[in-house]
Amino acid sequence: MPILYTLKNEVLEANKSLERSGLVSFTWGNASGIDRNEGIVVIKPSGVPYSELKVEHMVVMDLDGNIIDGELRPSSDTATHLVLYKNFPDIGGVCHTHSLWATSFAQAKMGIPVLGTTHADHFRGEIPCSRPYTDEEIQGEYEKNTGEIIVETFKAGNPNQIPGILVAAHGPFTWGKSAEEAVTNARVMEFVAEAAYRTSLLNQDPRAINQVLRDKHYFRKHGDNAYYGQD
Amino acid sequence: MPILYTLKNEVLEANKSLERSGLVSFTWGNASGIDRNEGIVVIKPSGVPYSELKVEHMVVMDLDGNIIDGELRPSSDTATHLVLYKNFPDIGGVCHTHSLWATSFAQAKMGIPVLGTTHADHFRGEIPCSRPYTDEEIQGEYEKNTGEIIVETFKAGNPNQIPGILVAAHGPFTWGKSAEEAVTNARVMEFVAEAAYRTSLLNQDPRAINQVLRDKHYFRKHGDNAYYGQD
Amino acid sequence: MPILYTLKNEVLEANKSLERSGLVSFTWGNASGIDRNEGIVVIKPSGVPYSELKVEHMVVMDLDGNIIDGELRPSSDTATHLVLYKNFPDIGGVCHTHSLWATSFAQAKMGIPVLGTTHADHFRGEIPCSRPYTDEEIQGEYEKNTGEIIVETFKAGNPNQIPGILVAAHGPFTWGKSAEEAVTNARVMEFVAEAAYRTSLLNQDPRAINQVLRDKHYFRKHGDNAYYGQD
Amino acid sequence: MPILYTLKNEVLEANKSLERSGLVSFTWGNASGIDRNEGIVVIKPSGVPYSELKVEHMVVMDLDGNIIDGELRPSSDTATHLVLYKNFPDIGGVCHTHSLWATSFAQAKMGIPVLGTTHADHFRGEIPCSRPYTDEEIQGEYEKNTGEIIVETFKAGNPNQIPGILVAAHGPFTWGKSAEEAVTNARVMEFVAEAAYRTSLLNQDPRAINQVLRDKHYFRKHGDNAYYGQD
Repeated sequence: MPILYTLKNEVLEANKSLERSGLVSFTWGNASGIDRNEGIVVIKPSGVPYSELKVEHMVVMDLDGNIIDGELRPSSDTATHLVLYKNFPDIGGVCHTHSLWATSFAQAKMGIPVLGTTHADHFRGEIPCSRPYTDEEIQGEYEKNTGEIIVETFKAGNPNQIPGILVAAHGPFTWGKSAEEAVTNARVMEFVAEAAYRTSLLNQDPRAINQVLRDKHYFRKHGDNAYYGQD
Repeated sequence: MPILYTLKNEVLEANKSLERSGLVSFTWGNASGIDRNEGIVVIKPSGVPYSELKVEHMVVMDLDGNIIDGELRPSSDTATHLVLYKNFPDIGGVCHTHSLWATSFAQAKMGIPVLGTTHADHFRGEIPCSRPYTDEEIQGEYEKNTGEIIVETFKAGNPNQIPGILVAAHGPFTWGKSAEEAVTNARVMEFVAEAAYRTSLLNQDPRAINQVLRDKHYFRKHGDNAYYGQD
Repeated sequence: MPILYTLKNEVLEANKSLERSGLVSFTWGNASGIDRNEGIVVIKPSGVPYSELKVEHMVVMDLDGNIIDGELRPSSDTATHLVLYKNFPDIGGVCHTHSLWATSFAQAKMGIPVLGTTHADHFRGEIPCSRPYTDEEIQGEYEKNTGEIIVETFKAGNPNQIPGILVAAHGPFTWGKSAEEAVTNARVMEFVAEAAYRTSLLNQDPRAINQVLRDKHYFRKHGDNAYYGQD
Repeated sequence: MPILYTLKNEVLEANKSLERSGLVSFTWGNASGIDRNEGIVVIKPSGVPYSELKVEHMVVMDLDGNIIDGELRPSSDTATHLVLYKNFPDIGGVCHTHSLWATSFAQAKMGIPVLGTTHADHFRGEIPCSRPYTDEEIQGEYEKNTGEIIVETFKAGNPNQIPGILVAAHGPFTWGKSAEEAVTNARVMEFVAEAAYRTSLLNQDPRAINQVLRDKHYFRKHGDNAYYGQD
């Protein structure tokens, strides 16, 4: 089953690069990937130290969470990942961390405004912070409800152009075309979160940059007219 | 005396992992462990650089501080550790540092509120800051009195569910089932202290998360119904 | 063509030292150099990871941006570099980053005031922040207009004595006698930006140091009467 | 001349440990030592990169600054060091850096208050910030005047118990029984500066700890009744 092996390896590598990125303390983070043709999701097991992770530890399941392969319990956030895969049809990977700067915005229950071109290069608009949970949502299928709230937040937005969110009081979730891209988006979000924090402390009424400058930067790097990087 | 050797080694290793954690500058920190059956406590010697620590440097004593083994003077905070072992019967290790973020809360004389789920995953409630010393407490048996004040602070609390405190104007003490777990709790406290600091600067009226969300996260990781990690 | 090879190597080395400096995340930065006699500019290619950069990747062009040598697309900020070379006749290198502290001032749309002697040692006055773009400037030749706005900002200033600027909402550009010196100036700017940030948070009405102290420090290190360092 | 060689080596080693400490960027820092019996001072040469420093680069002079040995120009701050050696008869080493946290207090023109026991363990009172220079002091013998202002600041204080100062708008000077101890005091000052900064941002009216607690901690580590560390 070479497709499966490839995906397991990609997800393993994405989790390893998550560890190298410094975004994860202890075991507080996870990355997953999906093969849309096969309808198969691969995710990190729960609570296993990153330094010990091996390809055979990866947990394989279908989109309903039925385990297909793997002997370990999947990440406790698995149900959130699955809701995102079902509702955001273009994504191929999901990542969750407790990285310091994004988590601080989540705990402050604030989105990350577009204060500069670094943000606009990567996220086409404010990175939103989700609404609080109801008590019922917490006491019910908590991790599934986390996913539903993320989807609700993006009802009027485009998850392909804003590939991440802050779950209020918790921390960031990001996604992308692959598990690796979801990790990259987590790293970029962490950078723009820190820069936004510093900007807000320097200038207590920071203004988001205007739409023309946002679009200029976003489309320098995305879409048919992008001219950043090599072909 | 293999039990003793094991405990000395565990305490040495906990002190070494404390050094690796980056929580300790110079010699400002110490970890100890207890063997409840034997009534023996092992602690780091005072003022010895971490890089030079060896198993034979560990100081062994009974719960009243009578030295049983070891040629070096024990940590100057030994009396505080002993009070905690006497009053918190379930703990097996104690750790003290001057780590930057926890110390900053201690110097501000503020507890660390439960601003997010990372905190709730590990500490079931605010990490308290102790009351100030009286002059008599400082001029008397200072280190013993530090322990008594910690115990007093937990009169209405549960030290097993909130395994740490900020001693006002001084810094953090943590504890756990072993010396190693006390060190882990010091590392988690440092992380949640930094996140709480950042959150407070972003949102000047940060709200603690509600009890339902706290319990959800605490019991995802603790107790009979925990479902985080592997069995 | 040994002159060309030397310049390509210098620019490669400046980009490598930019990477080592920690000022660059991902591929967000670039350094270039000019040979004034030959009228040749060498710049980093766009979007190539620093770890993979080799001398043969460097892009060579004339001052109008006509490619002379190299198979890769030059940095997307090339047009900004060229405007600076045309208007600041004494400079030999230009550097651009999204370094955190300088970017935070740029996003706050604030210059970096001369709050201490470290700043005065290197920059003879406030490091300015450029005015915002008009929409036409963004939608037109954006990168060229960035250069024109920098030049406009220095109409009343001396780019040799203040070898850097913050482009509002974007980040820092620096320059110097060589690509390497432009990188050094980016590093010094980053340090003084962080120190100015900390100072401003400690003392909410920080005062710039007076002209006498500024001149004393600037001319300890610059000009005929400099007495810092070895001859 | 073995005494001289020993002192040169000690000063070299102190400068090397200054570099390892992370307190110095570029060449912005220096340490010196004195042999009181011989009346000889050894100091780092000006502007030489730390990585290239060798024992033969050290500059040897008498207390009036007459060069006895060495071919390089001494640190530009030499005159400040000499004033301190002349006026503080118990000190054996001096250190100067532009370390970030201490420099930020200096630029804010604020002393570092005794907000916690970490400070009280090492400095018996607030670390003062010097008064501003007059224009004449800057335009005259600037570095010598810097020393005179430091001495003036300590007219009512004890430089042995508070082994350091912030020179307003500039940065920290520290001293100690040896060059190495001066470097250690610079490291401790940097730590307490950062902790005081964090404390001040958390609690906008932080209170200095009282005299009883200060004395308890200071004399745990200093003087005849000290009981910290090994004999």
